[in-house]
Amino acid sequence: MADLPDKRTAFIDWYLAVVEAADLSDKRYGVKGMNVWTRYGFRARRNLDKVLVREIEATGSEAVEFPALIPSTEFAKEKEHIKGFDAQVYWVTKGGLSELDIPLVLRPTSETAIYPVFALWVRSHQDLPLNVYQIVNTFRYETKTTRPFLRVREIHFFEEHTCQPDEARATERVRSNLGAFGRMAEAFGLPFLPIRRPEWDKFAGAYYSIGLDIPIGGARTLQIGSVHHYRTNFSVPYGIAYEAADGSRAYVHQTTFGLSERLLGAVVAVHGDDRGAVFPSEIAPYQVVIVPIPTAAAREAVEAATQGLAARLGAAGLRVFLDRGDERPGAKYYRWELRGAPLRLEVGPREVEARRASAVDRLGTRSSVGFGELEVDVAERLRTFDLALRDRAAERFRTSFAVAAELGQLSGSDRVRLVGWCGAEACGHEVEKAIDGALLGVPETPPPTVQGPPERCIACGRSEGVRWAVAAQPI
Amino acid sequence: MADLPDKRTAFIDWYLAVVEAADLSDKRYGVKGMNVWTRYGFRARRNLDKVLVREIEATGSEAVEFPALIPSTEFAKEKEHIKGFDAQVYWVTKGGLSELDIPLVLRPTSETAIYPVFALWVRSHQDLPLNVYQIVNTFRYETKTTRPFLRVREIHFFEEHTCQPDEARATERVRSNLGAFGRMAEAFGLPFLPIRRPEWDKFAGAYYSIGLDIPIGGARTLQIGSVHHYRTNFSVPYGIAYEAADGSRAYVHQTTFGLSERLLGAVVAVHGDDRGAVFPSEIAPYQVVIVPIPTAAAREAVEAATQGLAARLGAAGLRVFLDRGDERPGAKYYRWELRGAPLRLEVGPREVEARRASAVDRLGTRSSVGFGELEVDVAERLRTFDLALRDRAAERFRTSFAVAAELGQLSGSDRVRLVGWCGAEACGHEVEKAIDGALLGVPETPPPTVQGPPERCIACGRSEGVRWAVAAQPI
Repeated sequence: MADLPDKRTAFIDWYLAVVEAADLSDKRYGVKGMNVWTRYGFRARRNLDKVLVREIEATGSEAVEFPALIPSTEFAKEKEHIKGFDAQVYWVTKGGLSELDIPLVLRPTSETAIYPVFALWVRSHQDLPLNVYQIVNTFRYETKTTRPFLRVREIHFFEEHTCQPDEARATERVRSNLGAFGRMAEAFGLPFLPIRRPEWDKFAGAYYSIGLDIPIGGARTLQIGSVHHYRTNFSVPYGIAYEAADGSRAYVHQTTFGLSERLLGAVVAVHGDDRGAVFPSEIAPYQVVIVPIPTAAAREAVEAATQGLAARLGAAGLRVFLDRGDERPGAKYYRWELRGAPLRLEVGPREVEARRASAVDRLGTRSSVGFGELEVDVAERLRTFDLALRDRAAERFRTSFAVAAELGQLSGSDRVRLVGWCGAEACGHEVEKAIDGALLGVPETPPPTVQGPPERCIACGRSEGVRWAVAAQPI
Repeated sequence: MADLPDKRTAFIDWYLAVVEAADLSDKRYGVKGMNVWTRYGFRARRNLDKVLVREIEATGSEAVEFPALIPSTEFAKEKEHIKGFDAQVYWVTKGGLSELDIPLVLRPTSETAIYPVFALWVRSHQDLPLNVYQIVNTFRYETKTTRPFLRVREIHFFEEHTCQPDEARATERVRSNLGAFGRMAEAFGLPFLPIRRPEWDKFAGAYYSIGLDIPIGGARTLQIGSVHHYRTNFSVPYGIAYEAADGSRAYVHQTTFGLSERLLGAVVAVHGDDRGAVFPSEIAPYQVVIVPIPTAAAREAVEAATQGLAARLGAAGLRVFLDRGDERPGAKYYRWELRGAPLRLEVGPREVEARRASAVDRLGTRSSVGFGELEVDVAERLRTFDLALRDRAAERFRTSFAVAAELGQLSGSDRVRLVGWCGAEACGHEVEKAIDGALLGVPETPPPTVQGPPERCIACGRSEGVRWAVAAQPI
């Protein structure tokens, strides 16, 4: 049982070790950066997706699915977009034994697959708003080092695409998406900051982009998704227009909202600790693991009791795993801590006798639950655990930020930095150089730890139009 | 409101018209044979998948997901397999701006993606059985005419892959899969026949293949899936072996179980009628559609009542749609019949007054449901509808088969034909020529309408080893 690398000083090594030890992903597949969703990892993904579906459908979005292959002719219609993706797409050039007349792109994102069909679906103002989403895999020919969930070549992806009658309504949809993401993040116990990207870093083809950023220790942040306002940048080239109530024609304003499997990576990165992964109960593959501690004399009694407890928790709708393997209890504790199970119940002869199981949650809090009040007690322990986990993450979030007043303070920073910024691109690039990272942009909600606006731009010293901006080392 | 083509005399025209009119799939995408899952079609697919997941997980299978791209080097390892698929795969040859060193195949099925990893996962007898499944899209470069759900180039696909310690245990898994499929088919009201394919028609690389065939009118059948026994045909080239309890090493025996979106096509083809699609309530996108019939005097009362009913049915866990559109009630009835909603509730001033909604199920049975007993009554109507639908399908199934005693009776047949067959390939091909279709093989369960074994082979007249076989025109 080798120890994990130190999370604080060797974050990426720690992260890779946890993903592997918790058996969330198998990277021994024959194409680098395309990983296998293991049985355990898939369960976490499925639970996570359920939350996404619940929250996005609560805002009136419906599921669809568009093809994975996009004709190169459609792909090239929006000029900024093709420029942004050209160097990182996979090309299908051959079908069976012959060359294809029109090469196909394996979708890196689905604007150019969906919008030609939106042009057919949208005819009148009665067809609006059109809010649809899909959960599909996207593909990027990554040239950088790949990491499970964080940077992969086949990406499990959520993308909402909407058409609205005008710019204001599209802005409202952006707000609605941020609200939905807030509720998702709450379920995962993940504090985040929505940050409006600077012009030079927005999505290819967008009017503006809001990144959803999570600090994950030191100056590092992880962008787990984004919300974009497209105005009519795509609807004009793709001809998505409608007849208004007064008979006039207008192009729709579009928005998108994207999230990737990075969400799962963020859960590992934010909640994990020196004993492995830690899952909030909403997405834990198993919420409760029962470890029998049999003795020669009480083997059957312990077996019967643990099976009964497992059956009852399952019937109560909980995801429960009864670990009946041959290993010693200590080895099982170790493994289920690595794998991040929220609550462990230990049941030996003493517990059977007293009709109370020993309970240990993944943050180390010990208690016991009576067999009689099992369902209620376990639900209560999970709630307590989730709140404690959320509080720990919130506290870390608050202490992840620190103001920098001088460019010189950015180098070697062990925090995400808040800086005054005048909005000029040149000043932004100075900040990026100083922190050896990126100026993520201006937060949409007040960043933690600061009161009131900044006094001057950290780069040029001007005070007009200065706002707080976030500088970090995005992963 | 154009009439649908006649199902009996113009089946394919009827089928295509229903899929389009019911808005299940949009085939106006820019790549022929790659269709869009519409909002309505996706709901049907999601409900259908839920049944697959429920039934396969009940047999101890767990979900995983393997990458969509397969290195050509792995793809070529099993020689029969690559021969079987070579002409119908999509090739990814370029990543970004450069040629790939090793071309990648877009999975047509996942044996060659999964088995190199199985070789890592399976080490000892304690790792067996290994039963995993995935629901993913597969890709085939079809050269035949494509049809929504029936023959497409991007296929929504369910595939189970298992490793068993020996041949007998693999045979048991095949049986278990047939049982699970029986329960799925029961939920969809779809009678089927499992038919062991002749040698010349088995899956590329299989020891034997069992097709899951459904008669869909005339001599036509639709294969919606299959179960395969691979013996060690793949485990040897991919090196999937284990250490037995006695320390010896052995190759695993493998099985697979595949189902495709053809299942949804079969639901349309079998249950649909001259008024459109008909969905069993288990997979209907909406199980109950409420149509308000407002009058000028009672607009608000009808609105309030229908909203109340919809809210109650939703709270009871039913999928309900309140059609508040501007059209006349008759137009709504027509559309929801095309779309196959199991039950329609009509609510006008009279119904509000009497506190009873008029109810019409998709087979035309009229009744009424009291507002007081709404949840119970509606559930009862749906149960009655499902049983009637299943009975209708079962009766059609029985009358779909007829014995042919002479090759001359096969030509122009309006039934699926049961023939005596000695098992010789030459005789099989004579049957195929005579019916202008395929000898599907020998059924695993007794076919309808026949008692006892056949007397002689329809082609050569021999009586030794003769068994009933099925001849049809598969779609």
